[in-house]
Amino acid sequence: MSKKYVDIETLKYILYDVHKLEDLLSRERFQEHDLESLDMFIDSVKEFSDRELHPYFKEMDETPAYHKDGTVIVHEQVHKVMLQSGEMGIISACFDYDDGGLQIPISAFQAALYIMDAANNHLPGYPSLTLGAAELIVEFGKQELKDIYVPKMLSGVWGGTMCLTEPQAGSSLSDIVTKATLTNDGFYKITGQKIFISGGDNQFSENIIHLVLARIEGAPKGTKGISLFVVPKNRLKEDGSLEYNDVMTVADFQKMGQKGYCTTHLGFGDNDDCRGWLIGEEHKGLAQMFLMMNGARIAVGRGAAAIAMAAYRTSLQYANERPQGRKLSANGKKNPTEKQSLIIEHPDVRRMLLLQKSIVEGSLSLVMLASKYHDILTTATSKEEKEKYHLLLEMIIPIVKTYPSEAGAESVDNGLQILGGYGFCTDFSLQQYYRDIRISALYEGTTGIQSQDLLGRKVPMQNGKALKLLAAEIMQTIIIASKDDELKDYATILGDKLKNSQKVLEHLMPFAMKGNYERYLADANLFMEYMSIVVLGWLWLEMAVDSKNQLNNADKKYSKTFYESKIHTMKFYFKYEVPKTNSLAESLMSDEVLTIKKDKEYII
Amino acid sequence: MSKKYVDIETLKYILYDVHKLEDLLSRERFQEHDLESLDMFIDSVKEFSDRELHPYFKEMDETPAYHKDGTVIVHEQVHKVMLQSGEMGIISACFDYDDGGLQIPISAFQAALYIMDAANNHLPGYPSLTLGAAELIVEFGKQELKDIYVPKMLSGVWGGTMCLTEPQAGSSLSDIVTKATLTNDGFYKITGQKIFISGGDNQFSENIIHLVLARIEGAPKGTKGISLFVVPKNRLKEDGSLEYNDVMTVADFQKMGQKGYCTTHLGFGDNDDCRGWLIGEEHKGLAQMFLMMNGARIAVGRGAAAIAMAAYRTSLQYANERPQGRKLSANGKKNPTEKQSLIIEHPDVRRMLLLQKSIVEGSLSLVMLASKYHDILTTATSKEEKEKYHLLLEMIIPIVKTYPSEAGAESVDNGLQILGGYGFCTDFSLQQYYRDIRISALYEGTTGIQSQDLLGRKVPMQNGKALKLLAAEIMQTIIIASKDDELKDYATILGDKLKNSQKVLEHLMPFAMKGNYERYLADANLFMEYMSIVVLGWLWLEMAVDSKNQLNNADKKYSKTFYESKIHTMKFYFKYEVPKTNSLAESLMSDEVLTIKKDKEYII
Repeated sequence: MSKKYVDIETLKYILYDVHKLEDLLSRERFQEHDLESLDMFIDSVKEFSDRELHPYFKEMDETPAYHKDGTVIVHEQVHKVMLQSGEMGIISACFDYDDGGLQIPISAFQAALYIMDAANNHLPGYPSLTLGAAELIVEFGKQELKDIYVPKMLSGVWGGTMCLTEPQAGSSLSDIVTKATLTNDGFYKITGQKIFISGGDNQFSENIIHLVLARIEGAPKGTKGISLFVVPKNRLKEDGSLEYNDVMTVADFQKMGQKGYCTTHLGFGDNDDCRGWLIGEEHKGLAQMFLMMNGARIAVGRGAAAIAMAAYRTSLQYANERPQGRKLSANGKKNPTEKQSLIIEHPDVRRMLLLQKSIVEGSLSLVMLASKYHDILTTATSKEEKEKYHLLLEMIIPIVKTYPSEAGAESVDNGLQILGGYGFCTDFSLQQYYRDIRISALYEGTTGIQSQDLLGRKVPMQNGKALKLLAAEIMQTIIIASKDDELKDYATILGDKLKNSQKVLEHLMPFAMKGNYERYLADANLFMEYMSIVVLGWLWLEMAVDSKNQLNNADKKYSKTFYESKIHTMKFYFKYEVPKTNSLAESLMSDEVLTIKKDKEYII
Repeated sequence: MSKKYVDIETLKYILYDVHKLEDLLSRERFQEHDLESLDMFIDSVKEFSDRELHPYFKEMDETPAYHKDGTVIVHEQVHKVMLQSGEMGIISACFDYDDGGLQIPISAFQAALYIMDAANNHLPGYPSLTLGAAELIVEFGKQELKDIYVPKMLSGVWGGTMCLTEPQAGSSLSDIVTKATLTNDGFYKITGQKIFISGGDNQFSENIIHLVLARIEGAPKGTKGISLFVVPKNRLKEDGSLEYNDVMTVADFQKMGQKGYCTTHLGFGDNDDCRGWLIGEEHKGLAQMFLMMNGARIAVGRGAAAIAMAAYRTSLQYANERPQGRKLSANGKKNPTEKQSLIIEHPDVRRMLLLQKSIVEGSLSLVMLASKYHDILTTATSKEEKEKYHLLLEMIIPIVKTYPSEAGAESVDNGLQILGGYGFCTDFSLQQYYRDIRISALYEGTTGIQSQDLLGRKVPMQNGKALKLLAAEIMQTIIIASKDDELKDYATILGDKLKNSQKVLEHLMPFAMKGNYERYLADANLFMEYMSIVVLGWLWLEMAVDSKNQLNNADKKYSKTFYESKIHTMKFYFKYEVPKTNSLAESLMSDEVLTIKKDKEYII
């Protein structure tokens, strides 16, 4: 395991310098914060992660959470991290002062959680889901519900979950059948099964508060008949004590990775005594849940980006320490009497390291971009600003969920490869990162679902306005970079790729216009890959622009090499990754239709 | 776990029809075989795999081999499969009658082993390495050594290994230090450490015969001073009994996957009593070992191709059984009152299945191509034929090792994705295939090493003759396909990609000419990817040509759909995979040098 699991300099550089956290601090919501206090918050989370998260990374893989006697037995560190996350204000960081929060910018909070993810991705999900659930109660719940649940959740004493998936429905939420029946006492009786519930139970928590999607009896079919309920594992009696609320932990799911973060199967109301309280309006549950989903999707991207970061640091350390092989001399042979090289000196290893670096730091910048949009949206003062950042955030959400998950897995794969045979051995952490990160492309909406969301919902939004806004942001960087002799060629390339994305859409759009949505969306995954590369190319160009400026700054915060390494990595991304857009465009614009089922089944 | 882990029809189609096994049978070596007898051999191995391999696939993952009291404890099925592989003639299949073998064509043998790999990849390595070791003894050993070892090995009573890697040397064989000291009794005393030894020990085997690379005292440095020794775990005394030969199992390696196939760390001569016998000439050990390495590298590609096949069958079965979601209707919405679709009806799932199918069946054809070259080479009757197939085999070896390993892993990754969250759960086999296949790109030479071999050794061989021969083979298929209206466009595309590979080489070659091998080889991995896609495109076009012919054949063996599905998959490969050559060529021909270290280190 690498002693240095995260590159804090780069994290702070991207948060403070590239995405200019300071610009946010003039907003009213953040007026009691300054860069120094936020920097201290981040440092304290790093220190906490060093002490309470990272040392348990391997151990939690070796001792997976498991189901026993109707509960789930998790590593004791889960309990410790939940309570300390409460005490340190990590869970409540972004909540209003009035709700017991600290009104910290989401960007700074995400940076802190990124450190925790990199330290040990099996743990941050517990506090993270808890705050997401609490957020929904705060946003849509009545005061009474807020008073009962939110303080205990923000202090980490009670956990929280999101309960969406059901066995027969999978990703298709319109098919959920969990039932809610109104009683005369104001609450609903809940019955149904939920699967894949992360953090669904543990032996330490006094209570777990489930946010459950269910269908009120007589509700319309499909997604328009789904409502949102708060369903505690134990309900509060009038005397203030807790009684069991008939939420049964039926089983758990044993997994290939992220084994310390339990995944449960819950049964509600097996004894007809499970009570739930409606949150917000009837039948609006899905829309409400999706409000939280944006945060959850950024969190998945953040987690994947962080795992890839930790894997990169580990393989980089290995490459700097492991001697093996020699340089080729002018006759193409190696001289065995020469000292062995460190493997970081071999071009192929350098290619794999730079690929990792470009994906890892690019993903981090993407997560910070989405967080910045989120911050601006929640603090917007004008309708125009709100509208603009709503659209930009919507546009970037499927990308920030997907790119770090998919490219991050590829990045970890390359890190594992650098270790050779050792990469496959459990004594080394690369194989654990490899297994852990694989969940990212699955939960909170698979890559397929994100891609349909991008091309099917986000691109056509308000006649393409969201995409136009994003393109305008990208163009701003292109224009600035065009004025720099070293950067202008890259700016031109990015401009071309952006223009080509328009051509791809012009090719696809007519299918949607004609009502042939199946055809329009058939290669949505390829479009996702195309747009992700354009966005990452943009973020790298942006980082190079800033680094160039800093290099001319006598007062620069980091070393010359630090900034030069960013410019070098940008060039790497443009040489090795950006050209992939060409082949993607070729496939996307092909007139052959091969993946839509006609009469005969050729997939045999 | 899929009940149908291998598509036997496609296997036989590729072996018999596409690669025309029958054409080989006129050769003297194979004159006692006919298609029927070979078909029975393959069927018997399938039946054996159904009974003795596949049922233990999950169990062997859950109960990994482990080191205890100086030996390795493996699953009891290892013993059973070794002995039965001996009895059934699987180990001896390709050996000469004179050496106790059956003189079965390598192609038919590889097809049989492919079935075993697909059934349970944790087991076939034991018999497979044993036959490889026996092959070296037969080829280079004195009669006395053959008499002692070969019969016991071919019957599966004794195991065999290859011992190359050492802790300080890794892939760099020029740095191995295991020492051999000649004694007055004709044998050598061996001392040293070997790591990553597959099948290195187990509690059942009466004996394990290690083929060990070591350096005779006073030998030149580098690879030119390495000799090959047979070093049994227990040596034969004059009275015919066995005595311990001071080969110590020091430890084992616990791994992320392929856990039932033990990986050991062996110590030779800790008590100065380890005897080894020289095989072949002094200092020629590496060249001799490499003779076996071609087989071993085909075997790795075969194993990866087979794991990907099993994963494809599993995800295909799931996609055909799992209902989820609905088709989009003309307004772009789904109608929740409609019955759910099976997920195989979703274009994105179809794309992932077809990607798998194209990689899986294409890889199988590649393995059979290499095996055919191997067969022709070993039975060549003229110098010209020997020379031609030697070069073709050398050219294809790094590709057959690499493509199924790399693309196979991507294929399994897509299979896992099709299962959604279940793909990540240990109750489903996809995650095991995902972990198991990852070793393929590492052992028997990593992808980096194979790529250097391809561009650095094989392409320049005899002034490019090997590559010219391969291109001529590809051109033959292009010419035939050009005459078919449905296929001619694909033939044109493949011709272009082949021509472009020449342009890429024209761009790179001058660096080699000027002695700048580091630059010449820096992007060897990308060149490997480029050439692999061209070769696979060729093999798919070849399969489509044959399928088109069969469709016109009233007497065809398989259904119309069977052949149409091959043509459809060829088209898929050309739409989604072949365009990747464009971006690869762009990266390969870029003048930017970013992965060769200059003065400053930017990878930080």
